Parts: sequence; C-alpha cells; structure tokens
Amino acid sequence: MVDIIHAKRSGNELTDEQIQYFVDGVVSGDIPDYQTSALLMAIFFQGMTKKEQATLTMKMMASGDHLDLSSIPGIKVDKHSTGGVGDKTSIPLAAVVAALGIPVPMISGRGLGHTGGTLDKLEAIPGYKVEISEQDFIEQVKKDKLAIIGATGNIAPADKKIYALRDVTDTVDSIPLIAGSIMSKKIASGTDALVIDVKTGAGAFMKTLADSRALAKALVDIGKGVGMQCMALITDMNQPLGDAIGNSLEIEESISLLKGNGPADLEKLIVTIGGYMAVMGDKAKTTDEGQKLCEEVIHNGEALASFEAMVRDQGGNPEVVNDPKGILPQAKYQIDLPAKKAGVVSKIVADEVGVASMLLGGGRQKADDKLDYSVGIMLHKKIGDPVKVGEALLTIYSNRENVDDIKQLLYQNIAVSDSAKAPELIYETIE
Amino acid sequence: MVDIIHAKRSGNELTDEQIQYFVDGVVSGDIPDYQTSALLMAIFFQGMTKKEQATLTMKMMASGDHLDLSSIPGIKVDKHSTGGVGDKTSIPLAAVVAALGIPVPMISGRGLGHTGGTLDKLEAIPGYKVEISEQDFIEQVKKDKLAIIGATGNIAPADKKIYALRDVTDTVDSIPLIAGSIMSKKIASGTDALVIDVKTGAGAFMKTLADSRALAKALVDIGKGVGMQCMALITDMNQPLGDAIGNSLEIEESISLLKGNGPADLEKLIVTIGGYMAVMGDKAKTTDEGQKLCEEVIHNGEALASFEAMVRDQGGNPEVVNDPKGILPQAKYQIDLPAKKAGVVSKIVADEVGVASMLLGGGRQKADDKLDYSVGIMLHKKIGDPVKVGEALLTIYSNRENVDDIKQLLYQNIAVSDSAKAPELIYETIE
Repeated sequence: MVDIIHAKRSGNELTDEQIQYFVDGVVSGDIPDYQTSALLMAIFFQGMTKKEQATLTMKMMASGDHLDLSSIPGIKVDKHSTGGVGDKTSIPLAAVVAALGIPVPMISGRGLGHTGGTLDKLEAIPGYKVEISEQDFIEQVKKDKLAIIGATGNIAPADKKIYALRDVTDTVDSIPLIAGSIMSKKIASGTDALVIDVKTGAGAFMKTLADSRALAKALVDIGKGVGMQCMALITDMNQPLGDAIGNSLEIEESISLLKGNGPADLEKLIVTIGGYMAVMGDKAKTTDEGQKLCEEVIHNGEALASFEAMVRDQGGNPEVVNDPKGILPQAKYQIDLPAKKAGVVSKIVADEVGVASMLLGGGRQKADDKLDYSVGIMLHKKIGDPVKVGEALLTIYSNRENVDDIKQLLYQNIAVSDSAKAPELIYETIE
Repeated sequence: MVDIIHAKRSGNELTDEQIQYFVDGVVSGDIPDYQTSALLMAIFFQGMTKKEQATLTMKMMASGDHLDLSSIPGIKVDKHSTGGVGDKTSIPLAAVVAALGIPVPMISGRGLGHTGGTLDKLEAIPGYKVEISEQDFIEQVKKDKLAIIGATGNIAPADKKIYALRDVTDTVDSIPLIAGSIMSKKIASGTDALVIDVKTGAGAFMKTLADSRALAKALVDIGKGVGMQCMALITDMNQPLGDAIGNSLEIEESISLLKGNGPADLEKLIVTIGGYMAVMGDKAKTTDEGQKLCEEVIHNGEALASFEAMVRDQGGNPEVVNDPKGILPQAKYQIDLPAKKAGVVSKIVADEVGVASMLLGGGRQKADDKLDYSVGIMLHKKIGDPVKVGEALLTIYSNRENVDDIKQLLYQNIAVSDSAKAPELIYETIE
C-alpha cells in the first residue's frame, strides 16, 4: 500500500492490479484508514487518468451487488443529478419519460446539508415506500414503466467506506473520486442509458463551469467506457430551480408541472433532458421530436397518470395528485418576505436558500436528522423579475412563528438592483 | 480538523492555534490517524511557510520533556547528521570538540535500513551503556565534557506519533516535516549550538543538492528562530564516508582517526565541522583557528583521551582504545572482493553498500532486528583510486562463509572506468 501511495503521490498512473488491491483492502478492512486517506489526498492533488478512473469505478462497482434488469423489456433509461436546491426534476421527469413507454428504473438518494433528496421528497407523500425488494422493483417497472426507490442490497460497499472517509478528510471535491462514486452506483444499478445533470454555481457542488465540465466529461467517459449510452448537461444552480424548496412544496410543484402548470425553468429543463432520454430510449429520432413528445405527455395528462400509478404501486396515497394540499403535510405558518426596495431581483444565492429550508426543518444537518416535510420556501420572484417595495419576494412555510433568523439569512442572500437578467438555464451538453 | 486539512489543502498558512490543536490532538489521540495522514499528505504537496515550520517544531517540542542543561557551565554544542553509510563522524568529532574544553551533550539515535546509527556503533564496545539517567548524563558532561546517549524521558511524543504515521503513508520525505522532526528533538535536548550535516546523494535521504539545500535552510531557520546558534553543511553521500561500514569496524576506524591515522575524507569532515563548533563554543575566533585546534587534539592524543574517558564512564571497556581488534566483536570470515578489470574506481553506490552491510547482519531491516556488531565492509578503494585486475576493492567481514549474494550486490554497485575524479566532500555551508 505504501508503494501505491508513493506511485500516486509521485504522479504515476496506478495499474489495474494496484487499484484492485486498494479496493479489496478497503472492503476487507485490511488497509487501515490512515493509508486510505493518504492515498485519497494524493489523488486529490495528482488526479487520475481516464483509465484509472474507469478501473476505480469498475472495481468499486464490482465490490458489491449488481442489479440485473434484463427481464425488463426495452432500453432502460435513468437520470442522475449532482444535486441542488429546489431540484425536484427527477420526479416529474421520470413520469414524463415513462409516459413515452420507456422503462425508468430509478435508484435515488437522500439529501444532506442545503441539498434536497429525491427520496425525502417522495416520502412527503403519506404511505410512499422507497424500500422495496428487487423483485417488486422490477415488476413495477414492467407494469408502470416507472419506480423510484432507494438502493437495494449491497451496492458498491467500497464506495460507501471511501465516501465516509472522504467526508472527514476534506477529499470530497476530487473529480475522479466524485465520478467513481456516482458511476460505480449507476453501473451497479443496471441501467442501459443515463443522462447526468451536472449542476453548476453557488448552490452546486461544482462552483465553476470549468470544474463542472471536467466532472461531466469524466462521468460520460466512464459511462461510455462500459458501453452505457451516456451524456451530461451542465445546468444552472446559482438560484434555486423552480419556485418550491421543501419536501411537500416540491411534490406539489411536481404535480402542478405534470398538470401543465409548472414553473417555466423547471419545465424547460425537464423537456430538454426528456428529449435526450426519448432518443436514448428509441422513442424519437431527434431530440426535437423527443422534446415535442415530452411536452405532449405533460399537457395531455399521461405523465400525471404515470406518476399516479407509481405512487399507488409504491404504497402512497394517489389522491395526492388531485388534492396535494389536503394530502401532503402542511406547515402551520406562512410568512411573506417583503422586498425592502423596488427594482429587479439580481441575486438569490441557492445554497443559502437551501440552508434556510434546512434550518426550518426541511433538510438534514447530520445524516440521522429527522425531516419536517411540511416546511420550506416558495419563491415568488426569480432573478430578472421586477419587484415593488413591500411585495413578497417569497413565502416561508414554517412550524414556528418566529422566523427572524431565517428572514435575516434570506435578506442577506437575495439582492434587488436596478437591472438584472435571468441567468442561462442550460450551459452545455457533453456527449 | 477538517477545516485545518482544508486550509492546508488549499495552500493557506495554518495559524498557531490550528497547529497547536493538531499537535495536542495527535498526542491525546483525539484526532484520528486518518485525519492526521490526510493533513500530512496535504503538507507534502503544499509545503509550510517558515512561520508554520517554526510553530510546528515548537509545539512538537513542547508536547514532551525538555532537558535542562543550564547546570553545565559553558556553551553546549551538538552535531546532527541526516544519516548516511559509513558515517561514524559524530563519535570522533564529539571527542575532538570535547578535548577543546567545549561541553558536548550528544543525544543520538539508532540505524534503520542502509543507514547506520551512532548508538549501535557505540554498543559494539562491550559494556557501553546508552541509556543513562538525565542526572548522570549531566554529571558526565560536566566531568568529561562529553557523553553520547539515547533519548531520555519523553522527548517530543508528538513527533514519535507523527513519524510512525509518515512511515506508513509515504509522507516521510517532506522537508517541513523532516525539519520539524529533527529540530523538535534537538531543541528539547537543550543544546545551545548545533551543526547539522545534511548528507546529499545516492546514500542520503536527500538525493539532490536542491532538496538538501532546502532542508538545510529549513533546519537553520528553525534553530535560529529559537535563538540557537545553528549552521549546516551539505556534504557528499554518493560513496560511503571513510573506509569502514559496520559497527565494530567503524569504532575501530574512529579510534584510528583519534590516533591520527584516519581516512583523509573522514578527518577532513571532522576538522571542518569541528572548526565551526570551536567558534560556536567560543574556543576559537575563526574557523581556520578552530580547525587548527582540532588537528592538534587529533594528533596529540587529547581527543583520544576524551573518547576513552567517555567510554569508561559509560560502562564500556576502555581497553578498546589500545586493542580495538581484541575488545570489539570480530567476524569469522574476511573475504576480499577482487577487481574484475583495471582502471579507476568511478562509482561506489553508498546506499547499496549500506544494504550489503545490513544483509550481513550489521543493520536493521525492521526496527526490532538484532544486530551483529562484528560484520561489515572495509573499502580499500574509493572513487578516483586506481585499481589493478584482481586487486581487492574491499573486504567483506562476515559470519557466514558464502557471501555470493553480497558479492553480486557489491559488483553491481561498484564501477571501474578509464578515468574518474574523487567527488567533492563538502558542497555548501548554510549559516
């Protein structure tokens, strides 16, 4: 192991055997944590070649179970986001693509810190179960073309151990390690095709376009290297996506979207990604054609029906689609945040809005924190929108009456100027 | 701790408080090894400023006991070498300087790998004790001006723990960490003045002159920063120093030197360093004058008398100075290595000669290996010396009859060419 650390520290490419030795030793516990963390820090500084990244990913994938989805007919398509604030995209998007007849077997995660998690949002629906057996998962995808669940079995245990160590040794933001972590789990999940939404900006893990591009390329390279259809989009996370932040609020917004009444930015992102997934799933010849199909199923109710079927089959109350406010947990207080001056909204710092929602109880500071599904923030203005003095910038949904701390945090992170333009939503596509 | 790792990883200067927190946490065990090793690797890549190095050194020093030598009159002078092959310099040098009336309270170490250790060499003398109490150490330096012992008490425990971790995480060769490790112990040992011999070349820790210079500067900066008189020399370790490698053989050579019959390179190094120490100890105005004084005590027997007194007072058999071969453990076999062709010796790779001596039993592969004091290698030719076919390049001192493996290793690492020049012995002085 000292030789392996030395090789990486000196900037050499690790051999397949060295990477295998490392991954095996991490899983068995034979390699002590202090050597693993030294190697992780050396990787942070020296990076990894394409070949090393591919090998690390495959060895971490092979360290655990591999889902066999071959009994599901058709091209299985999945979508992954690197995580952001207000990013409920996966939920309506999966329903849209399923409505096109493409099987979407989605294995998703929970949120931490300012970032929300798809599973948490779905659990706001009373009864919705994210832990179901592999067999039930496969059966549901066959029937509904759609299931969104948590990881089953022992997926990429090497990644679990390495991730826990990265978290406490400041080696989280290393592109080869991030790419290996994401792709080892996605490859193990057995999908045929994958679109990755790499978020960029203040509320994203990758703060700069250059880093986001490097990560997107690494992810796509690894996916293609194992014969998966794979592409990535780099999309904005300077301000929150859509208007709703918080679990109940984001499910409600997802349902609105599936009724054709979603916020413009969210619908644009869903239709764009859905267009690519339609082509990957062989339901459209071009992305333009795919996008038109997505718009159709959003506006004719078929995507909503897919969502309803999934909710019902995973134990959730399907009435949620007709009466979201009646079914989803609701906060006791709704408190507006009025604009202090007139002008145009020029800044809504996404991660701090995420922190505000977390502090209300909607997110986790530690992995074992309990969530309050009902709380959150509803934006009424986005960047580029004009605002009058006293007009509500947003509404705080809270179960405590005094939210002065939250107001203060939000005021500090929302700016109103003389003029501002809405940021681009989609920066680049990496194929 | 994650913040401290992050600061260093990002290339920022750590504050005194952060370094104190780290050192305290290492000693108490509150900081887990995996975080320590991540920080060490970040330091390897990002380095440390002068201020950080000084703070780290002082905090490691302050983590343990501090020897109070103030009851010994005069300016206490010590010498440290970064370690090499055949480097017995400290032993005769200490006797030379003591003979000038300068107190030399020397705390030394053991060897590992191809590098010999001063304590091991002295223990070849039957009865010599390196573990004596602090009080006896002080009394002996008062009486003889000279004692060479192992560390007493709990010197720099933070360094002990950090060094153990560096060894298994490939973060040994980081200049700030090496400098902190050496100087924390030297400052704790209570000396007033210190000359450091930084070895450079194949048999040294620092292989290049640039690295050796950087280490020498770091060491001197730290020493001066705490008000110690401190200077460094960068000296050659491409070939072994002197002719003898092995514990008994090196003591015998040390005694020969103190009788005025030492190898030229060894005497030159001792006189040079001794000249600086004479000035530091206020016994000479200039290094030239100091060097002359050193030559005097080597050739008039006073330095030998100092050595004999130390050996006697530390329990060793003082007869060793009159009859080294009779008192020191002797090997059963002496096997010459004949030159295969005529020419001039152009290469004697120091570290591999050290490994040969270790493999004979004269050095340690692991920290708890037992030593055979009697074995080793006696060089008859050094780089630049002419040699005839069949003439002995060296003699192997062994307790096993078959030394074909040792011969093969030595032949691979000694070259004879048409012409070659003796390398420089002393490259630079850093004050």
